[in-house]
Amino acid sequence: CTVSSRIGWISDIIVVVSPENIETMKSIIEKYGHKRVMVVKGGITRHRSIFNGLKVFAENEFSDHPLQKPEVVIIHDAVRPFVDEDILSKVVMAAKEHGAAGAIRPLVSTVIASAADGCLDHSLERARYRASEMPQAFLFDIIYEAYQQCTDYDLDYGTECLHLALKYCKTNAKLIEGTADLWKVTYKRDLYAAESIIKDNLSQQVCVITSVKEAVAQVGFLLHESLKSQIKVEAMSISLSKNDSHLQNILSGQCYNFVCINDKKCAIQETQQLVDVLEKSNIPLLYPVVLILVHLDISENISFSIGMEELTRIKKFARELKKKNILVYGLLIQYKVCIS
Amino acid sequence: CTVSSRIGWISDIIVVVSPENIETMKSIIEKYGHKRVMVVKGGITRHRSIFNGLKVFAENEFSDHPLQKPEVVIIHDAVRPFVDEDILSKVVMAAKEHGAAGAIRPLVSTVIASAADGCLDHSLERARYRASEMPQAFLFDIIYEAYQQCTDYDLDYGTECLHLALKYCKTNAKLIEGTADLWKVTYKRDLYAAESIIKDNLSQQVCVITSVKEAVAQVGFLLHESLKSQIKVEAMSISLSKNDSHLQNILSGQCYNFVCINDKKCAIQETQQLVDVLEKSNIPLLYPVVLILVHLDISENISFSIGMEELTRIKKFARELKKKNILVYGLLIQYKVCIS
Repeated sequence: CTVSSRIGWISDIIVVVSPENIETMKSIIEKYGHKRVMVVKGGITRHRSIFNGLKVFAENEFSDHPLQKPEVVIIHDAVRPFVDEDILSKVVMAAKEHGAAGAIRPLVSTVIASAADGCLDHSLERARYRASEMPQAFLFDIIYEAYQQCTDYDLDYGTECLHLALKYCKTNAKLIEGTADLWKVTYKRDLYAAESIIKDNLSQQVCVITSVKEAVAQVGFLLHESLKSQIKVEAMSISLSKNDSHLQNILSGQCYNFVCINDKKCAIQETQQLVDVLEKSNIPLLYPVVLILVHLDISENISFSIGMEELTRIKKFARELKKKNILVYGLLIQYKVCIS
Repeated sequence: CTVSSRIGWISDIIVVVSPENIETMKSIIEKYGHKRVMVVKGGITRHRSIFNGLKVFAENEFSDHPLQKPEVVIIHDAVRPFVDEDILSKVVMAAKEHGAAGAIRPLVSTVIASAADGCLDHSLERARYRASEMPQAFLFDIIYEAYQQCTDYDLDYGTECLHLALKYCKTNAKLIEGTADLWKVTYKRDLYAAESIIKDNLSQQVCVITSVKEAVAQVGFLLHESLKSQIKVEAMSISLSKNDSHLQNILSGQCYNFVCINDKKCAIQETQQLVDVLEKSNIPLLYPVVLILVHLDISENISFSIGMEELTRIKKFARELKKKNILVYGLLIQYKVCIS
């Protein structure tokens, strides 16, 4: 579903969901503000569910919100969350040319056929076969025709859309090599693997924001220097009161980590402006944004200059933002400038 | 390799390793004290490597340490670290009866054949096929005969041992349904998945050890009550100076987490006895053992009763044990007994 907000050339998204999960899915779509999405009731098998989804475009007369019949339709599994624009674009272009196209991957294990007695009948030569993955794309008329033609046996026991296009429309799908990230999240261990991929992606980039004041900007520069060998760092000294276009660019580049360095006692007001920009961007809707507020104490006092009152205000601020999926952390650094 | 220390009925383990990794493998075997293990140089393909491993048993006359030719041999991939005794035992028993046996799993994706033009040729009916996994087991004479008979083409391009047994010895292997954990660690994400499985296994059980003193034993009882809904908890009040057989039983059950509660200022001596038992068990060789030392302060003083000297000693103790893969954490609890 997150695909729709990023890929403009997809006009409509049909999400096919089992009856008992329709309300949950609708609330997810509303919560994350997904546009161009329609929820359709699934059937008792994979093929029956896909057929239900396709019917929405063909049986427009029964609908309150008629959708335009598409030239090409993409079919995808929700259990493959890491589909990217590149493979979607490739299968669509190939489907326009060949009528059908699907992502494939090399086989990880040899495939064998077993005999009725539970013993090996024969094994397949691994190099000659591929695993058929998703996404797949079709000329709408071809795949819809195939589903209309196919038998109840196909609908109940079949699993492969490319097979239906071949059998009923004589269309040999173009096979497109996909990336490893297209794998099917199937077992509990796959959830851990998926989590690790998301975390990796979210921690690719950090944005360091400082005020234009020299001592503060210098700390930002030093942080940039020490981090840049490990991750992509954007560092900038700005006054957040201006609607900075550079900041807008970084936000559109899907940055999820911000370090804001200041030397004022009360930095909440300035931070609020960053939070406003973040909220408008819809970025925290998809994944949590991490905001580290660094208070730089460059006063001459030896004791830390933060009071209980200030601490209470920051805690309250963080609690409010957590509801909006923005995680605020505070850091107090006492920074002694030695003048020799 | 960890299999050998746990499964007594395996007499010898041959580890086939690429030439550049032989020294690393030997140092791992020495470090972890693995017994009954021999390292053999691998070939340039999978089948050539397996054949090299099998030759050790057949060409005994050239060896300094002749091994007895086994009745049954198990072939396994190192990229499948979660093989358990149950599936090993099943493939061995089936190999004794049928001559060959291998673990299988249902296919996760449909398998397809592509034509020369990169388009779909045909797709296989998913329910009729299985993924061939490891471990596999064979009567030694059958698999060794198959490798001696097979062609250079088989040795260079083949991947499936069950296929060789069928082709050259007319042996139809018995297929045994394996668990999902037999999957092949192939991609980076699989390393995260493997890590999560290990962590899950290590955190299944905790052992709470207290002295027999009433106030201390009571805290142990309360901890047991609050943890038992989440993990398996063994709680016991013992004097560690005795060589406790109950503790020995827990250690043989692969417990990796210990909470030791005491009210003495100096608990290192008592803890040392637990450490000695742990070291003798070889448990910390495989995975890190976590040892949480809880110092219960039931004195009437308001201030925490731990001094710098004691802290330094605990830190030094923890630093030493870290080298032995035992991670020590300290916790100081002030426990006020109110007598009304």
